[in-house]
Amino acid sequence: MEINRPDVLAEVTSAFNRYEAALVNNDVATLDALFWDSPHTVRYGATENLYGYQAIAEFRAGRSPKNLARTLQNTVITTYGQDFATANTEFQRPGKQGRQTQTWMRTPLGWRVVSAHVSFLPDAIAKG
Amino acid sequence: MEINRPDVLAEVTSAFNRYEAALVNNDVATLDALFWDSPHTVRYGATENLYGYQAIAEFRAGRSPKNLARTLQNTVITTYGQDFATANTEFQRPGKQGRQTQTWMRTPLGWRVVSAHVSFLPDAIAKG
Repeated sequence: MEINRPDVLAEVTSAFNRYEAALVNNDVATLDALFWDSPHTVRYGATENLYGYQAIAEFRAGRSPKNLARTLQNTVITTYGQDFATANTEFQRPGKQGRQTQTWMRTPLGWRVVSAHVSFLPDAIAKG
Repeated sequence: MEINRPDVLAEVTSAFNRYEAALVNNDVATLDALFWDSPHTVRYGATENLYGYQAIAEFRAGRSPKNLARTLQNTVITTYGQDFATANTEFQRPGKQGRQTQTWMRTPLGWRVVSAHVSFLPDAIAKG
């Protein structure tokens, strides 16, 4: 299993950046397109646990488009062979420090997120 | 890419259960053994962001062995082909509701966690 094959890493980095741009602009169509269209897809958000592509899409459709801006730090994208990758990053919003993990899979339609988890550190730690 | 091949799903479920038993018993040797021994391994814990196998092992060695008991619910393990899997679960501790995501890879030494994220829901939501 080759780790971080340069061509694969470039592809996943591009998909990751596309997702990030869509997120901060609340481009729901692109966010939806980048998640795996499957009942197996899971997304744990900062305040919600969502099971299946449909539940994730419904959440995005109803989300406030405000306060989505953020800056990333310590981003680590790792690819495993040709078809799998993880993308982990810390992010900051005013007064808040968060973490995002994604697992990406190559599908016939392109790279898709099959599992994601977003959380904030407890206030005392984020501000400490 | 075959999803949830029964033999692969059985293997990963066994590894997941072994990890869970080690966690609640603070069996640090087993916890360490089940993480990928690589500088690429990432673990976002409830209060810490850890990069690389060494940092994760050092954290475990210094962790309090108290209050590790928990109950799981809505566990979803999904396998992708023969070599990759995600394991997502909600868990409860007294007064706290958490989520755990893991990405597992088959290695020559067995299944290993390459990326993990643990977080608690904000109190207001967990108790709401």
